[in-house]
Amino acid sequence: MEKAGLEGIVAADSAVSHVDGQAGKLIYRGYEVQDLAANCTFEQVAHLIWRGALPTAAELVALKRTLAAHRPLSEQMAHVLSELPASAPPMSVLRTCVSIIGLSDPRAESPEAGVNLEIAEELTAQMSSIVASIHRIRRGLPPVRPEPGLSHAGNFLYMLTGKRPSDLAEEVFDDCLVLHVDHGFNASTFTARVIASTLSDLYSAITGAIGALRGPLHGGANQHVMEMLEQIGEPARAADYVKGLLAAKKKVMGFGHRVYKTGDPRAAVLRRWSRTLGEKLGDTRWADISAIIEQVMADEKGLDCNVDFYSASVYHMLGIPNDLFTPIFAVARVVGWTAHVLEQYANNRLIRPLSNYTGPLGLRAAPR
Amino acid sequence: MEKAGLEGIVAADSAVSHVDGQAGKLIYRGYEVQDLAANCTFEQVAHLIWRGALPTAAELVALKRTLAAHRPLSEQMAHVLSELPASAPPMSVLRTCVSIIGLSDPRAESPEAGVNLEIAEELTAQMSSIVASIHRIRRGLPPVRPEPGLSHAGNFLYMLTGKRPSDLAEEVFDDCLVLHVDHGFNASTFTARVIASTLSDLYSAITGAIGALRGPLHGGANQHVMEMLEQIGEPARAADYVKGLLAAKKKVMGFGHRVYKTGDPRAAVLRRWSRTLGEKLGDTRWADISAIIEQVMADEKGLDCNVDFYSASVYHMLGIPNDLFTPIFAVARVVGWTAHVLEQYANNRLIRPLSNYTGPLGLRAAPR
Repeated sequence: MEKAGLEGIVAADSAVSHVDGQAGKLIYRGYEVQDLAANCTFEQVAHLIWRGALPTAAELVALKRTLAAHRPLSEQMAHVLSELPASAPPMSVLRTCVSIIGLSDPRAESPEAGVNLEIAEELTAQMSSIVASIHRIRRGLPPVRPEPGLSHAGNFLYMLTGKRPSDLAEEVFDDCLVLHVDHGFNASTFTARVIASTLSDLYSAITGAIGALRGPLHGGANQHVMEMLEQIGEPARAADYVKGLLAAKKKVMGFGHRVYKTGDPRAAVLRRWSRTLGEKLGDTRWADISAIIEQVMADEKGLDCNVDFYSASVYHMLGIPNDLFTPIFAVARVVGWTAHVLEQYANNRLIRPLSNYTGPLGLRAAPR
Repeated sequence: MEKAGLEGIVAADSAVSHVDGQAGKLIYRGYEVQDLAANCTFEQVAHLIWRGALPTAAELVALKRTLAAHRPLSEQMAHVLSELPASAPPMSVLRTCVSIIGLSDPRAESPEAGVNLEIAEELTAQMSSIVASIHRIRRGLPPVRPEPGLSHAGNFLYMLTGKRPSDLAEEVFDDCLVLHVDHGFNASTFTARVIASTLSDLYSAITGAIGALRGPLHGGANQHVMEMLEQIGEPARAADYVKGLLAAKKKVMGFGHRVYKTGDPRAAVLRRWSRTLGEKLGDTRWADISAIIEQVMADEKGLDCNVDFYSASVYHMLGIPNDLFTPIFAVARVVGWTAHVLEQYANNRLIRPLSNYTGPLGLRAAPR
């Protein structure tokens, strides 16, 4: 084995997104992600990712209508969620819920792109409501019904808290969703494509992707970043804390990236929001601690922070609990996952690599 | 893109199994699969695959005891199965059931190999009972309780039919399980490894693998082979039928393999069982039709049959309905999946390839 983990190996063509690690750019269907975050909503970006072009006004209305129509939890799903053990990890619950939705959808067997695009839109609406409801039910609170007049980002925050979010909170969370929509062949997207390459159904692919995102080396990083920020607690302790981690050869979460070599463009957007939210709340502690950690890591290790580093404090200041950080990642990424599955179906080749056998040879079993 | 589908790309080292496509050999941990089929039971091979050596007598007793202890359906699982829509595809049900088992297992978060090996053994016992019970419940029959005195293969057939299988049926099905236990980096195993490479839990990896196996390009082939055999119906029609498919440029299921270039060693074992079962039943029609198809494909296309071709008629003659062929594949392959996940955990590197971007660049979004 020369390169483990398929590092540097091009697995397939894709027109969904482009991670330009050298230039530090993330492109969705031709647009830089910062441009989209500044100028477009999650709904517009989802349309772009699925269909290859930003929506016309009429197309945007249609997509919003579809999302609104599929946001309410089905009776079956409300029943399932109410019966699940409160101790179950949210990502395992989300994985199970998507698998259950797939059980009773006869369209799952269809190879038609149009049908799968419908399922993609519906699943995007449903997963957001499921994640918000998991949070409510685990805390003994009743789920909140969606509010058709709110955006996808606004609805999620509303269904989480039962209160209409401020314009700032809605805008920030909308940007967070946009920044997490797609990211080349990351492990969960690649999982979805491998599953889809057997011509299995969209639900199987998304169930698998949720399982992959669940791992601490993929979706779990920002949760660990927030735990670190909370342990540090105040800016004055930040530098020593991080130097201590480095001296003990421990990993500092939220830094470095296999593909980006000159910084993660998503981190820049979130760094600004972390400060703005802090200023609005009259407490810039989390942004201040984060800035110090970033400086220490640059000085000592030459490492840039990645998207997970500032999403931690941003989510925290939006009132989102740590154990929802990864499920929220899935709420955004389902758009990319489904677009990749559609792309895989459209030009499919079974993804089946080889292994390099390192075991023994020539053994013989005695007759039983 | 030079090679789509990672064809010919070595993705990682592995000591679990070796598919030697040039020599037409399949090796599990040093032993040829035909040798194991002839001389070992499924339980012995499972021990070999998980632990790297065939079991001692005491180890075999311990494994059989563990499997027997975990074969009975939990009350929760019996309840879940009874509530599922009868129309749900068995593989989607199996995917959901494994995800549900993972929900309430706090050990899922453990990185310890010993703990994950325990889960692997339990899941192997449970999946067999779940598949047999799915079949019973879908036909309005009560699930059958496992019989501790029977082998894993014998138990499955017993739980499917409620009758103790003949010695021949048990031996044949045991061989079928042995032949399907592992097969290098096939798409479902590779899915399990990609998911595990994020350090996600074993249940997420197996849930994803079931989703991948569900696809017609992976697990679905033998079901389609049986449908073809049934359409042909009698040996006299076989040659014309297959020549007709070839003339219409249609795919003949059960032939060719990306890795094997000189024949699939598993097919040879199953070819013999197909004939033996036919002779025992006094009706060698399925073996006869299969032999004719094999000859036509060799003459016209130079293609050898693969494992799926003869497993179809063997399963059929064992009384297993077509819609269980893929779930049965999962019942055997879960051993290999879990061994690969353990191997991935033991020497992990995140599996994250690159994509080759083929979309536009340089687009700009108008301010919203």
